[in-house]
Amino acid sequence: MLDLVIKNGTIVTAYETYKGDIGIKDGKIEVIASNISCCENIIIIDASGKLILPGALDVHTHLQMPFGGTVSADSYEGGTRAAACGGVTTVFDFAIQKKGKGIIETAEERKSLCEPQACVDYAFHVAITDLTDEVLDEFERAVEYGVPSFKLFMVYKKEGLMVSDGVLCKALERSKEVGSMISVHAENPDVIDERINKFLREGKKSAWYHYESRPEFVEAEADKRAIHWAKAINAPLYIVHLANKEGVEEVKRAQDEGYKIYAETCPQYLHFTNEVYKREDGRNFVCSPPIKGEESQEALWKGIDLGVISTVATDHCPFQAYEKDWGKDDFTKIPNGCMGIENMYPYLLSEANKGRLSFNKVVALCSTNPAKIFGCSSKGNIACGYDADLVIYDPEINFIVTNEKMHSDVDHTIWEGVKLNGYPIMTLLRGNVVFKDGEFLGNPGMGQFIKRDRLN
Amino acid sequence: MLDLVIKNGTIVTAYETYKGDIGIKDGKIEVIASNISCCENIIIIDASGKLILPGALDVHTHLQMPFGGTVSADSYEGGTRAAACGGVTTVFDFAIQKKGKGIIETAEERKSLCEPQACVDYAFHVAITDLTDEVLDEFERAVEYGVPSFKLFMVYKKEGLMVSDGVLCKALERSKEVGSMISVHAENPDVIDERINKFLREGKKSAWYHYESRPEFVEAEADKRAIHWAKAINAPLYIVHLANKEGVEEVKRAQDEGYKIYAETCPQYLHFTNEVYKREDGRNFVCSPPIKGEESQEALWKGIDLGVISTVATDHCPFQAYEKDWGKDDFTKIPNGCMGIENMYPYLLSEANKGRLSFNKVVALCSTNPAKIFGCSSKGNIACGYDADLVIYDPEINFIVTNEKMHSDVDHTIWEGVKLNGYPIMTLLRGNVVFKDGEFLGNPGMGQFIKRDRLN
Amino acid sequence: MLDLVIKNGTIVTAYETYKGDIGIKDGKIEVIASNISCCENIIIIDASGKLILPGALDVHTHLQMPFGGTVSADSYEGGTRAAACGGVTTVFDFAIQKKGKGIIETAEERKSLCEPQACVDYAFHVAITDLTDEVLDEFERAVEYGVPSFKLFMVYKKEGLMVSDGVLCKALERSKEVGSMISVHAENPDVIDERINKFLREGKKSAWYHYESRPEFVEAEADKRAIHWAKAINAPLYIVHLANKEGVEEVKRAQDEGYKIYAETCPQYLHFTNEVYKREDGRNFVCSPPIKGEESQEALWKGIDLGVISTVATDHCPFQAYEKDWGKDDFTKIPNGCMGIENMYPYLLSEANKGRLSFNKVVALCSTNPAKIFGCSSKGNIACGYDADLVIYDPEINFIVTNEKMHSDVDHTIWEGVKLNGYPIMTLLRGNVVFKDGEFLGNPGMGQFIKRDRLN
Amino acid sequence: MLDLVIKNGTIVTAYETYKGDIGIKDGKIEVIASNISCCENIIIIDASGKLILPGALDVHTHLQMPFGGTVSADSYEGGTRAAACGGVTTVFDFAIQKKGKGIIETAEERKSLCEPQACVDYAFHVAITDLTDEVLDEFERAVEYGVPSFKLFMVYKKEGLMVSDGVLCKALERSKEVGSMISVHAENPDVIDERINKFLREGKKSAWYHYESRPEFVEAEADKRAIHWAKAINAPLYIVHLANKEGVEEVKRAQDEGYKIYAETCPQYLHFTNEVYKREDGRNFVCSPPIKGEESQEALWKGIDLGVISTVATDHCPFQAYEKDWGKDDFTKIPNGCMGIENMYPYLLSEANKGRLSFNKVVALCSTNPAKIFGCSSKGNIACGYDADLVIYDPEINFIVTNEKMHSDVDHTIWEGVKLNGYPIMTLLRGNVVFKDGEFLGNPGMGQFIKRDRLN
Repeated sequence: MLDLVIKNGTIVTAYETYKGDIGIKDGKIEVIASNISCCENIIIIDASGKLILPGALDVHTHLQMPFGGTVSADSYEGGTRAAACGGVTTVFDFAIQKKGKGIIETAEERKSLCEPQACVDYAFHVAITDLTDEVLDEFERAVEYGVPSFKLFMVYKKEGLMVSDGVLCKALERSKEVGSMISVHAENPDVIDERINKFLREGKKSAWYHYESRPEFVEAEADKRAIHWAKAINAPLYIVHLANKEGVEEVKRAQDEGYKIYAETCPQYLHFTNEVYKREDGRNFVCSPPIKGEESQEALWKGIDLGVISTVATDHCPFQAYEKDWGKDDFTKIPNGCMGIENMYPYLLSEANKGRLSFNKVVALCSTNPAKIFGCSSKGNIACGYDADLVIYDPEINFIVTNEKMHSDVDHTIWEGVKLNGYPIMTLLRGNVVFKDGEFLGNPGMGQFIKRDRLN
Repeated sequence: MLDLVIKNGTIVTAYETYKGDIGIKDGKIEVIASNISCCENIIIIDASGKLILPGALDVHTHLQMPFGGTVSADSYEGGTRAAACGGVTTVFDFAIQKKGKGIIETAEERKSLCEPQACVDYAFHVAITDLTDEVLDEFERAVEYGVPSFKLFMVYKKEGLMVSDGVLCKALERSKEVGSMISVHAENPDVIDERINKFLREGKKSAWYHYESRPEFVEAEADKRAIHWAKAINAPLYIVHLANKEGVEEVKRAQDEGYKIYAETCPQYLHFTNEVYKREDGRNFVCSPPIKGEESQEALWKGIDLGVISTVATDHCPFQAYEKDWGKDDFTKIPNGCMGIENMYPYLLSEANKGRLSFNKVVALCSTNPAKIFGCSSKGNIACGYDADLVIYDPEINFIVTNEKMHSDVDHTIWEGVKLNGYPIMTLLRGNVVFKDGEFLGNPGMGQFIKRDRLN
Repeated sequence: MLDLVIKNGTIVTAYETYKGDIGIKDGKIEVIASNISCCENIIIIDASGKLILPGALDVHTHLQMPFGGTVSADSYEGGTRAAACGGVTTVFDFAIQKKGKGIIETAEERKSLCEPQACVDYAFHVAITDLTDEVLDEFERAVEYGVPSFKLFMVYKKEGLMVSDGVLCKALERSKEVGSMISVHAENPDVIDERINKFLREGKKSAWYHYESRPEFVEAEADKRAIHWAKAINAPLYIVHLANKEGVEEVKRAQDEGYKIYAETCPQYLHFTNEVYKREDGRNFVCSPPIKGEESQEALWKGIDLGVISTVATDHCPFQAYEKDWGKDDFTKIPNGCMGIENMYPYLLSEANKGRLSFNKVVALCSTNPAKIFGCSSKGNIACGYDADLVIYDPEINFIVTNEKMHSDVDHTIWEGVKLNGYPIMTLLRGNVVFKDGEFLGNPGMGQFIKRDRLN
Repeated sequence: MLDLVIKNGTIVTAYETYKGDIGIKDGKIEVIASNISCCENIIIIDASGKLILPGALDVHTHLQMPFGGTVSADSYEGGTRAAACGGVTTVFDFAIQKKGKGIIETAEERKSLCEPQACVDYAFHVAITDLTDEVLDEFERAVEYGVPSFKLFMVYKKEGLMVSDGVLCKALERSKEVGSMISVHAENPDVIDERINKFLREGKKSAWYHYESRPEFVEAEADKRAIHWAKAINAPLYIVHLANKEGVEEVKRAQDEGYKIYAETCPQYLHFTNEVYKREDGRNFVCSPPIKGEESQEALWKGIDLGVISTVATDHCPFQAYEKDWGKDDFTKIPNGCMGIENMYPYLLSEANKGRLSFNKVVALCSTNPAKIFGCSSKGNIACGYDADLVIYDPEINFIVTNEKMHSDVDHTIWEGVKLNGYPIMTLLRGNVVFKDGEFLGNPGMGQFIKRDRLN
């Protein structure tokens, strides 16, 4: 009757840790029990000594995305294959609106690219770059269509992605009405440009000046501004890749006042500091916002501890080493973006294993919270009726990240050499084993589009 | 194989709400499944259209307690019977140390009183009134014995219950070492006495002056002081019956700084305001700390909303009407204490039903959080392996509280006439039905002593 | 030997109130004594029962300024005549840089207009609209020239006045180096434009929608942003015409952190609320930022009380009634600006007389603080060596403002009908009586250009 | 006509620094002028290159005070002689009420001791130890008598000085009504006692454990408590010898909310840290509250900078070296108290001279603010009509403190070896030269009792 039973494991949800057997049927969790006595013909996985966690949702990825004169180096297949091998069972991609195009049109176009390639389930945020009255009108239909989240760039002016504060306010107002979520990339373009020009004039072109041209206060200003508008309008807001201390403090202040302000950070901001930009391979770490100083790193961890930061996602946007080399002598020529889709969950679980935070908290950050915030009601938890997206984790394995062991299309990783305590040994996508003992066992096309719920 | 199955209900935990069947065996939750197909010989409870919640833990009760020249009006039997009928499946009592007595001795003595009478499970906090070096030494053994929480009074100087700030600090230090929790009743005795004397001199003796002699700022001062010491020592602290705004704010500030400060409030502070002391029957509402003004009430609700307040408990300490009458003409002669053990969970669930907070939050406040904070690892949740302490709740019932429908020994209730949306229709204590459709079906002596875990 | 003695008055400085005689020589205060026994040939003014205050410095005026398709209605002569009659002995004007012009060039051009007309002393802020490298280089020379303060507009994008955040940062950095002050008009143009467009589309065109298109949060955002940059760069910043609560709070926060952030408010924000925009003559009150709600008004007064707000100035920029009428049916056509140069000091002194604040505080806000902040070392105090710019004030006079009694070129006043307790009876400019008992006694051209000190 | 003229000096008030001549007559400042052209028969003091400051008011001294089984080592004559030589022209002494005695009786008794000895002017705070209804009634008469400030001890329980919180509240309430000021010594006696007992049991008896028994948090708690009551009652409060960071923060918070909370700190807290208790002569630095750690020292300076701390006074209470030696092997036997009356003003002026704060700020802290807060309307400023209490200061002198150069009765000084930039060269008390070039030139009995004004 059941298709599959995972026995003797320790179930870890965002809230509880307890022993239990999990019975799976038709890709769903059918039963959780102290002891499932199995009949024949049922596949049994023995998880003694292992943790069983819900699969992660990486709500911030840029796969096969045209950007900076090239295309991000992971194909949709490569990226989602790596995801599966890192315990990520759902990815969210940014479908970027072209001027004059509609929201659903944009999503549909993206879907046709993803469908044949996806190795895990997928959903879209649509990045709005041209908020005409028609597009504003389309918000409601987009929510019904299952894409209830829109991203606005407060930066990338020259690239034509940026929207003005007026547009941001208009989007927040409409979003509040229809039950969607606005997310923002918060940095200040004018100040960045002034700083870049100054550094170039002064001949300061090393990767360090990527950081110096977008330091803490450049990001913090835009965080504060976005939060200000969201509070004024009383609309929910989600800040992607928060990487600075003042931003964390402002999010907390707004939450304390009762506003629905959510913050996401990324593993690269939690593990590295801006010191990496002084390394010979500093350009490989170039992403925007850049990795910040130690004080910000501490603030991010504290923000996680206090519950100010709701989610961790990757902003996975890798480029090949030769592409990064374009900016060897001029940081403005480095394509912006790093990899992390296969490293996020293992890294955070390792931190939990080392005692920095609880396993429950990691599940909350990478799975339960993103599922709730973005309307994936069948994802992000281990309980009857949820999708059987599960990760079996061995806390005893010692794992050192090397690019050879990774499964993406990229030729290097910023996580090279990082030592992890514990590692996933199996990933199930809706009951199917897609990763086992270091091997990808899934197939492109297995991933399904997730039609999401109305939010708020 | 299972003893009992609850089918078709909606399971409500502190975190999730979902459909599922619950299978019970030997008093424990054995299985949760989308659909338990039952064999014969299993009792089946159909919970279609009903909510299934974990039983509440009322961590603050004073049953059959000598106080104010009399004894609180609920016998242990009467009080726990009422508890069962109000969805409370575990009560915590304060065993008050007599001068010269030990902690475990105090608990044992109290246990012998409770054992034959208890209709639900029970645990003890021991109230320390005489912190000798021997008693300090006994903290560790008390933790092992299963009583890892001690209450200190910052008030009731004349009654011989109060301890000094020096003693409080000593207790916090030791408590931190052994893994116990110090809780405090926070009010300032000297200022209360000055105010009482002043009012008596001025002939101001109505129930209103009970409030006026212990207004917001008298409680807030002691909250701040207790928190100050706990922060200085970095020891966990639990503030019982928090009832004022400034106190909530100070707890929040400490939590934001990363300290483990917990706050409990009571249903009487959430539903009533100090206006009740102007009523003809104002004396019936006399408790300490007194019910405060509207601004404090709002702050308490906000504190619940922001997660500042961790628990709700009753401070159930009723007196018969004739005893309350002793203070008809002089508020200082009113025995201090009110009833609520049968009303807390129904009241809060009704508020959830009306939309003020979520059902999950009510479960967190009354069941999951108290279980976690006070080390009851088999209580407070619906998951495999937990005790089958369950409440089945009908959200469609309209219920008006009248004392006739209540199950305690007391002749009146301050909750008289309060209209509730929804009401419990069944309570299970470790799989046994102890309350059904308004009737108590349990027996004195069914309740077991809960040996609790080491804390922190 | 002395030219003039003011006897028997009560001297009011920003700090003290005491009895004393003031002896004046060559336009300067030469002596202050308990009793000056005068020889013949000295003019004696008897100030028994009167207060003697330093003349006010109105550091925010727009006289004879081209704006909104017309020119502000007070000629330099008319405006400074009114100033003298309102106890203002120094005015600061904004000399607005034309694209391609230099700072000193801009000031010189303006000076040639002011020189023959000025009835009181005058100084300039230069409003920078085109911050080329040459202009940045000129900052230092401008400081030496005696114009160490530059204004940047964060608004008026279409009008070509606005500068970007990048420019603002560059100006703050340079300003910090050379000892000048950056001041900002803080509102957010994009959000204003979105709102205006929306209201126009909806047919909402009354004066009330001037307020609605620039409500509290539109101003507050820009305040926060300007303060953010100033803090990041650690440069002094002066916010002109602050009119909203959140702005006051943000200024306070920055000051508490030790930053040199100064805030100015205007009398119209202290006396009126946005209710005026519902009046039939609402258009006459249209200025930018608009007058805000009661909560903001209270915050401004509290900001004065706590010392958060350093100065009060007028933003005097009047238009004739027929010009205001252009926007009778469309608020976007109303020229922005109100009058106040003759009303500020009398109004605030009247408030002091009524007990709302101290006379010393009024002197601080209108005279001593602006003199210190903007480098007028011979102005703003009554002490030996300071310019004999003095106002003699009769606290017993009851005065009702009517436009007939005013001395400007404008045909109406928003202060019409306002009742004042006490009024100035005499103004001295460097020892010369320029106003007495309601009559202007000075001459155009008496005013001198004030070469100011390096700041900070 | 004038008795004395000080010519060519730079006048430094709390607000301004400017050149001017000062003419003195009958002990008062009669005239300040740019240039006083003197007739014969007038004494002229040439102050070229010197600063002229108002004499300091040391509002916290314990001269010839019975304490700790002995009497503080400075006689009233010796202490006030030293004061004069340190630029202090007014001292406040604490007249300590004996049980059963009245306020005025207490002051009168003290006055008879001071009158023949006083070398500078003097005033009293009365320390209330027995707040009977009669004493409460006497508050008003004490204000009229010229003693409008009362000190309450929150510590020294065993010594019989401490009052309860109830008494403190009663005093605050009455004080608010009659226009007096309550000041408090804020530390927590119970926690101190617990800590002392613990250290003695553990054999920890060095001077360092004086600090450890009264660390930051012991003082901070009482600060917060006193402020709490003052806020609840909305009565002014003055905290003496504030020495810890949290206390500064709480004072600031209360001031920001608009409450009249004043804080005083002492020079020993500004110059030394608790490291002194590790010195061989650590006992000489023993005072209560003890000197705190570096973080508190920084907070005190920041508190001065932000205006949170209103006054600096000495808590001068010296003991001879042999008395300090009583506690060589047991810190509980060290008489509590240090010297500073001759060092405060020179020390702070030296810090100003070094650039840490402005001279104006030093004048505010040591002279103008204490005079205003405690109702000495003829003291604390340089302006016509004020007492000619003046200090002439040479900023070019290099001075190293040694006890030989000091003028008190004490045989050592904690300030030994401290290097000062600049030093007073003359002190005038109501126009009389009492100190000149290192010599005391005054006489016992010159000092007058200052009848102070009603406060608030």
